[in-house]
Amino acid sequence: MPEHTAASRLGLSGLCFLLQILNILLFAVFVRYSPESSPGQCPPQLNCSRRNSDSGFQQPRSQGVPIQVLLSLGLLVAFLCRYGPGSAATSILIIAFAIQWAVLIQGIFYFLLNGKIHVGAQSLVSADFCTAAVLISTGAVLGRVNPVQLLLLALLEVTVCTLNEFILLSLMGVSDSGRSLTLHTFGAYFGLVVSRFLHQPHKDKGKREELQSMGQQRDVFAVLGTIFLWIFWPSFTSNAENWAVLNTYFSLVASTVATFILSPVLCEESTPRMVQIQDATLAGMAVMGMAGEMLVTPFGALIAGFLVGLISPLGFRFLTPVLHSRLKIQDTCGVHNTHGLPGILGALLGTLLTLLATADTYGDRLELVFPLVAQGSRTVTHQALIQLSALPLTLLLAALGGCLTG
Amino acid sequence: MPEHTAASRLGLSGLCFLLQILNILLFAVFVRYSPESSPGQCPPQLNCSRRNSDSGFQQPRSQGVPIQVLLSLGLLVAFLCRYGPGSAATSILIIAFAIQWAVLIQGIFYFLLNGKIHVGAQSLVSADFCTAAVLISTGAVLGRVNPVQLLLLALLEVTVCTLNEFILLSLMGVSDSGRSLTLHTFGAYFGLVVSRFLHQPHKDKGKREELQSMGQQRDVFAVLGTIFLWIFWPSFTSNAENWAVLNTYFSLVASTVATFILSPVLCEESTPRMVQIQDATLAGMAVMGMAGEMLVTPFGALIAGFLVGLISPLGFRFLTPVLHSRLKIQDTCGVHNTHGLPGILGALLGTLLTLLATADTYGDRLELVFPLVAQGSRTVTHQALIQLSALPLTLLLAALGGCLTG
Amino acid sequence: MPEHTAASRLGLSGLCFLLQILNILLFAVFVRYSPESSPGQCPPQLNCSRRNSDSGFQQPRSQGVPIQVLLSLGLLVAFLCRYGPGSAATSILIIAFAIQWAVLIQGIFYFLLNGKIHVGAQSLVSADFCTAAVLISTGAVLGRVNPVQLLLLALLEVTVCTLNEFILLSLMGVSDSGRSLTLHTFGAYFGLVVSRFLHQPHKDKGKREELQSMGQQRDVFAVLGTIFLWIFWPSFTSNAENWAVLNTYFSLVASTVATFILSPVLCEESTPRMVQIQDATLAGMAVMGMAGEMLVTPFGALIAGFLVGLISPLGFRFLTPVLHSRLKIQDTCGVHNTHGLPGILGALLGTLLTLLATADTYGDRLELVFPLVAQGSRTVTHQALIQLSALPLTLLLAALGGCLTG
Repeated sequence: MPEHTAASRLGLSGLCFLLQILNILLFAVFVRYSPESSPGQCPPQLNCSRRNSDSGFQQPRSQGVPIQVLLSLGLLVAFLCRYGPGSAATSILIIAFAIQWAVLIQGIFYFLLNGKIHVGAQSLVSADFCTAAVLISTGAVLGRVNPVQLLLLALLEVTVCTLNEFILLSLMGVSDSGRSLTLHTFGAYFGLVVSRFLHQPHKDKGKREELQSMGQQRDVFAVLGTIFLWIFWPSFTSNAENWAVLNTYFSLVASTVATFILSPVLCEESTPRMVQIQDATLAGMAVMGMAGEMLVTPFGALIAGFLVGLISPLGFRFLTPVLHSRLKIQDTCGVHNTHGLPGILGALLGTLLTLLATADTYGDRLELVFPLVAQGSRTVTHQALIQLSALPLTLLLAALGGCLTG
Repeated sequence: MPEHTAASRLGLSGLCFLLQILNILLFAVFVRYSPESSPGQCPPQLNCSRRNSDSGFQQPRSQGVPIQVLLSLGLLVAFLCRYGPGSAATSILIIAFAIQWAVLIQGIFYFLLNGKIHVGAQSLVSADFCTAAVLISTGAVLGRVNPVQLLLLALLEVTVCTLNEFILLSLMGVSDSGRSLTLHTFGAYFGLVVSRFLHQPHKDKGKREELQSMGQQRDVFAVLGTIFLWIFWPSFTSNAENWAVLNTYFSLVASTVATFILSPVLCEESTPRMVQIQDATLAGMAVMGMAGEMLVTPFGALIAGFLVGLISPLGFRFLTPVLHSRLKIQDTCGVHNTHGLPGILGALLGTLLTLLATADTYGDRLELVFPLVAQGSRTVTHQALIQLSALPLTLLLAALGGCLTG
Repeated sequence: MPEHTAASRLGLSGLCFLLQILNILLFAVFVRYSPESSPGQCPPQLNCSRRNSDSGFQQPRSQGVPIQVLLSLGLLVAFLCRYGPGSAATSILIIAFAIQWAVLIQGIFYFLLNGKIHVGAQSLVSADFCTAAVLISTGAVLGRVNPVQLLLLALLEVTVCTLNEFILLSLMGVSDSGRSLTLHTFGAYFGLVVSRFLHQPHKDKGKREELQSMGQQRDVFAVLGTIFLWIFWPSFTSNAENWAVLNTYFSLVASTVATFILSPVLCEESTPRMVQIQDATLAGMAVMGMAGEMLVTPFGALIAGFLVGLISPLGFRFLTPVLHSRLKIQDTCGVHNTHGLPGILGALLGTLLTLLATADTYGDRLELVFPLVAQGSRTVTHQALIQLSALPLTLLLAALGGCLTG
């Protein structure tokens, strides 16, 4: 970009240097490997068995921890590919910084024990999720901020995101294994609120079009991103044995077919572009985030994926222009349609399914999905209310965080 | 394509809508998750232990089921990359539809129990194989059919493919863990017969050349496809411990070197193009499909891969023009040379190896590769005859199915 | 290249044919699958428990062997992507040949038992490492040699590399799980010495610039290569539980941020190009090769990665021109800065850490990292001296091998 003068270049260089030195110092003072470095370690203050089954990234029996780290990195890469070749270098910087920062901040919340933060492979997977939320927010403001601003955004968002995650998963006991709320919804609305503050009436025209029309190069990236999502995501969200994998898979497939239904009607094209298919894939994933492990029938996943696959292109066609002209929110990569809306729908669906949960339909899986209900300390209505209340809380925190960053 | 008028666009849209609604309804009526959703479930009517070791996608000890699903998706993606960027969107639609349909159809054959189809992760892996056969057939007719016709092709081929698989694997007890017959040979000849019916004397010229000359973009996809095949396929076909992995690996390597031998002679180029290397990789895989777990010496795999790596380019040079001019069969992506011929060779090799199988050379592995022989209910000659008879049966079913579709 | 005449084309074809036939014959005479084909097999003459924990590619508990083979292939692919689309076909030929040859040569050193080489999945992983060293050397001479010369280079380098590995890991008991010395340092200096012999005063100008300026196509490959490195490498180097994974991960992240610090100062660009990020990623990996499993604090990995991320671009700016003008060594892809220097630094760091190793800080892990020290047959000082002496030995063998090849 031509407006990057020598001063701003050195600014980025200096900021990177300062932040990295800061990270090294903080790591040196606070962070140690946990003694056994086994995935199951956690401070005695927290109810670990609950947290682990809630947060959904633990499968000690079927997959080793290195595989989990591998899969969560694949997920980050899929998001990286979403924003095209032009911003790949910046995205990698954001990833490299946000992971270190997230390990620190999450360590303060979760792993603080005797004044030292004990990290293990678990911390990295957790930090990867947080970094993914930052990448989603990045998508909303891309093209209008420079790397220095993005680094500051990452600095703040990681903090607020960890706070939100801590309140929802650990304090409230919300079941959100696929991160509909803490990842997709939080990331999208955080980015949108920041985008509102960045609004400048002029020079905003045509950014999305420009980004989308970068031609074949972008298509290659869209294919790559879609591929990595298809391969890595469904295997990753699984908690309660294989049901979440299958539900996510069916949802993906249905939302992809749905894209082909609306595309000819809305876009005057016979086959949708790869970017649209990628959007539909993301939306199909986001909607299954919370509900993935709760659904007990495959056709439910098909219906949810189908609906969200229809809603997301409609949002691009009708909602994005309204957001832009009325609310002065610009959404460079359409994160509202691919992450925000499907995330909210997923949360509502999860609440509904929680209400309907009975020991009959779940059997032994009740213990995994709703451990507090299975232990008898909560009724399903109580759990459903908590799941529902997590939605406005997430939106509130995302908005507050966005205001602060803006 | 310019000939896609508004009518055909809406036709695709409507067909997608109808098929997806149909899928949802059928899933709602028939499909439920299997109670424990463990990979080993199967209806009591079938001899499960036999089927599982035959069909080769079960490794409960060394790999979790999510990893299996991940690998089978990687396989689909490798096939997707084969047909270049222009058809990626259409291929994804075919994949998304064919997976749902294959789960339904295969459920009817395998998992029918008390009037409900019980699906698990196993069903998805099985459906992925069927979808891969559809993608192979697609390669033979690509460029001459529109997406609506491809959807109908998928609809019919999934049905016939499942029928073929059911007869071979479950009724006849054929050992075909790497799917030489049910995947490669079936897919290739189904596509070729359909291609025969699509023959139009004019407007057929130069399609293959056009597809191949799309320049660098296509090369990137060929590299991607080759990479995914190298990474995912050998790990995936393994049944009898690690031997199948190693055999496939050695076969790949030898057929790649063989490509470099013939390419300078046939093509007047010093190094082969990536697409040719991709073809050789596919051929090296296809030939190891049935024989992969039967070979007991690494040099056997090297020889088989070497031969097929020589035959496949020769087929492109001499056989494809003959097919085109005499039999009026056009083979857009050369599936006959990369899947058809190597698949037949693999089946013949598998028959030969079955004849030579003795308890001495196999040891404990006999139980895994030929469970019926190990149990004493069949002699090796009997098993070899059955393996051999599976070949014409597959060809017959592929031809009949192709005629029906055409 | 226009200078490839018909004669040289047929030369490549003939050489491939001869080598492949030779491989098949040698495999037929010498190579058999090991009876149980389990990953733990080894000849009784060698102290297996030591070798396995030294060489670092054994994780029987958490990952199956097929996954290991998958990961090691992913690693090769990452190196393949490094040299851009133009040389992908040649690289695949080198890979295909070097793997067969390395299985043979390594079999002679390690698996020779009763006159037969018994191969298992372990051999393939081992051969993949050796092939990776060949690919690194290829990077130093790329653009100035033809495929025939590269095949001969592979033929010799595999032999010397296996010799070096055998002396270091099996005879001296050096702990080098991530292969700082045997892979990165050896490959880089072997390539550089060969490059010295290839020096021709004219026609050498501008090769690196030409390779780097191949535009967007190359960027796509750099992104791909970086992605595969991030995903596959950290999971792969792990030996002593998860510490090596985490250390490598932190080193990667810090060296990536460091690239963004120096790039604006040195290159007059605001964000570094993807190729530079890929170089930093490789350097961050190479430095953690030996020290990865020895570091006991995360901030140590951050500091090491940070320093190497600063040194590698400085090397490109100041050291490469000196190498070129004074020593007449040309380094097409800068392997000295991305593999050579970081590898040496990693080896020195590993020596330092060995000196500091006590049973207190390591606990049960001492057994895994330094089995001979844990058994009491060596002091840490002795082990440190051996680790240190492995460095000049590797350099000497690499130089001798390079002279021979040149």
